[in-house]
Amino acid sequence: MSLASVATTVGGGRSRAAGTGKIFTKSGDNYLMGMPVPDVSESDRVHVLLMEQGAIVWKPMRDSYSVTVDSPKKEKKFNGLKSFIAYQLTPSFNNIPVARRYKHFDWLHERLVEKFCLIPIPPLPDKQISGRYDEEFVEHRRVQLQEFVDWMCRHPVLSTCGVWMHFLTCTDEKKWKTGKRTAEKDPLVGTMFCASVFPPEKTLLQSLVEPQVDAATQFVPQMDTAVKTLFAICGDQSKKFQQQWKKEYQRIGEGFSEMARALAVDERRAATQISLASSVGQAAGVFINIGQLFGEQPKHDFIPFSDRLHIYRGLLAAWPDTLGEYRNAVQKRKECERLTAEQKMENGQLQEVNRRVDVMSYALLAEMSHFREERDTHLKDTIRNFIGAQIDFYKSIVQKLEQAQTHF
Amino acid sequence: MSLASVATTVGGGRSRAAGTGKIFTKSGDNYLMGMPVPDVSESDRVHVLLMEQGAIVWKPMRDSYSVTVDSPKKEKKFNGLKSFIAYQLTPSFNNIPVARRYKHFDWLHERLVEKFCLIPIPPLPDKQISGRYDEEFVEHRRVQLQEFVDWMCRHPVLSTCGVWMHFLTCTDEKKWKTGKRTAEKDPLVGTMFCASVFPPEKTLLQSLVEPQVDAATQFVPQMDTAVKTLFAICGDQSKKFQQQWKKEYQRIGEGFSEMARALAVDERRAATQISLASSVGQAAGVFINIGQLFGEQPKHDFIPFSDRLHIYRGLLAAWPDTLGEYRNAVQKRKECERLTAEQKMENGQLQEVNRRVDVMSYALLAEMSHFREERDTHLKDTIRNFIGAQIDFYKSIVQKLEQAQTHF
Repeated sequence: MSLASVATTVGGGRSRAAGTGKIFTKSGDNYLMGMPVPDVSESDRVHVLLMEQGAIVWKPMRDSYSVTVDSPKKEKKFNGLKSFIAYQLTPSFNNIPVARRYKHFDWLHERLVEKFCLIPIPPLPDKQISGRYDEEFVEHRRVQLQEFVDWMCRHPVLSTCGVWMHFLTCTDEKKWKTGKRTAEKDPLVGTMFCASVFPPEKTLLQSLVEPQVDAATQFVPQMDTAVKTLFAICGDQSKKFQQQWKKEYQRIGEGFSEMARALAVDERRAATQISLASSVGQAAGVFINIGQLFGEQPKHDFIPFSDRLHIYRGLLAAWPDTLGEYRNAVQKRKECERLTAEQKMENGQLQEVNRRVDVMSYALLAEMSHFREERDTHLKDTIRNFIGAQIDFYKSIVQKLEQAQTHF
Repeated sequence: MSLASVATTVGGGRSRAAGTGKIFTKSGDNYLMGMPVPDVSESDRVHVLLMEQGAIVWKPMRDSYSVTVDSPKKEKKFNGLKSFIAYQLTPSFNNIPVARRYKHFDWLHERLVEKFCLIPIPPLPDKQISGRYDEEFVEHRRVQLQEFVDWMCRHPVLSTCGVWMHFLTCTDEKKWKTGKRTAEKDPLVGTMFCASVFPPEKTLLQSLVEPQVDAATQFVPQMDTAVKTLFAICGDQSKKFQQQWKKEYQRIGEGFSEMARALAVDERRAATQISLASSVGQAAGVFINIGQLFGEQPKHDFIPFSDRLHIYRGLLAAWPDTLGEYRNAVQKRKECERLTAEQKMENGQLQEVNRRVDVMSYALLAEMSHFREERDTHLKDTIRNFIGAQIDFYKSIVQKLEQAQTHF
């Protein structure tokens, strides 16, 4: 019995995984079930390292780089009949800008999701139908694309993969199309991506992997809920700052302004040296000003925070599938063990399945390490920036109020 | 024709004033129309001074004093069948506390309004039926009564008048009742109060009085609107701080708290030195704390501000009547001038009317000076305190956020 036919026999693994609510739309179990793997060129190989303290990580990038997403300009094609927004991407390693539209990002994203079954891909900004050329929208999308690009650049595997490099560097229209076709025909997609993973020699103990996967399985939905809650709060607060709170401080300002006008009427008659009307007028101005601060504030705290949370939201949504791929593989191995015990499978074949499950486990643990590391720096950074922006905001309110105070 | 009968003839003045929406419920035109005035003892006399720069003021108090309204205790009478709240009032001039209930204040207020037709009386806190023994309500009412008492103490005329002194000092039940009866039978009420006003000798030029009255007539409704607007804002903001804003900051805190719990799940497995879970947990605590600050803040800014505005609201509501009394007097004088020209009134009688209108004008201008002076100190103080409390509030938010910041 060939492994390929076993793939059909033990297909139950998939339906069991589906029982957790996840559906495998990738290349299925081809890799695990011993489909012959194509040659993987050196540049496409992905290495997993076993560190001294037992940590399992992706081989770090040799040369880290960054890519800036620049202020887009509206471009036209078909003699101006169709207009679109093209963002300028400039990688630090060659400094040659490329123009990419949202639909190119979308195409890239599809390729990445298809290819990296064990690596959650950061999400793109949401699609939007109306108001696509609105300046504020375009600028905000630029920031969101920058977040996506930053995450890609920081990832040891994603940052070096072919389709991403093609996306970042190709300036020739013809080569662009050829590259697209190549990417779309990439055989190393889904679990077959694991054929390009080169893990340490050491066999993995299941007792090492399982607890980590269990923790992640518990962590992901909890974190997902927390991120969604905070994301919703950010949206809600942004609106409230921009509308309600802004208006309410302005109302206070208008109240004072009304009082100042009333006082001015009476002061015209009185010989008062100190004009209370003018003091109250100053206070009015300050409160109206504070209202404006409220209106502008979300740009500095809640919106950047929610842009970051959007990335986590997308990644956390992808993690259950990733964990599901692993559980599926483990399930398959169990069934192969049974088949071997029943002498329906050869021992050598089982050993090959074991090896491949190990490759997947190594990849999963490496990705979990990476995600955890990112969290500990990037998420920390995110919260620090959020709190920092709030500090600046409340400090500037204090400053404005102190300015008003001097008039009393 | 006697002046008393003229009072009936020229009664039109009253209905004209009524046309402005104000009704005279006081003693009407008795004073102006030459009703014989009773003897006024030295202690009951009120002096108006003409200052060097032409300012017309009440003779300043010889000895200024203050009265503290102290934490009330619930008392019982009729063998505990009836319970009530008695506030302790302690004047600084004798340090002897007296116990006064709201209904005593109410009685006092009625006497003051009745007596001082040209002096707006500060309002009492609003009556309240339910929750009268609620601790927070009682304490807030104490603060409001303190505001009323403070205003009374600062007023050169009100602070020395008999009924107020009786209210402040009488500790004997029997004397209290006698004093009450005396006050209720006071003949010097309404315009007749002017019989106790001793102005400068100098005849007043109408051209000096009219523009000030005009300015006040314009000022009062405008200021009234402004005060009402700010008063409404204070009430609205108090509620929003105590409920909505408090809840929203707590929601942010809960979002972070949820995130901290999720991170903790994963960190149990990971060998991270820095615990992001604990940092995020700290931030959560800080935001929940800030929520509490929001909830408590109105006590420090919007509520004290609105208590002050309540005083102005009451005074401004009384001013149109006060100004109406003056306009009424001027109208009467005009009609008397006509009657004299038609030889229906003797010149001597007209001169007496003129003198009495002058007394009223002097009293009005003195009160206007006092009100303006109060405004320039007391209102200024009020706004400074309000802004100061807001500064402290936002500073403490900054402090809390900086505390959270140290964890990132």
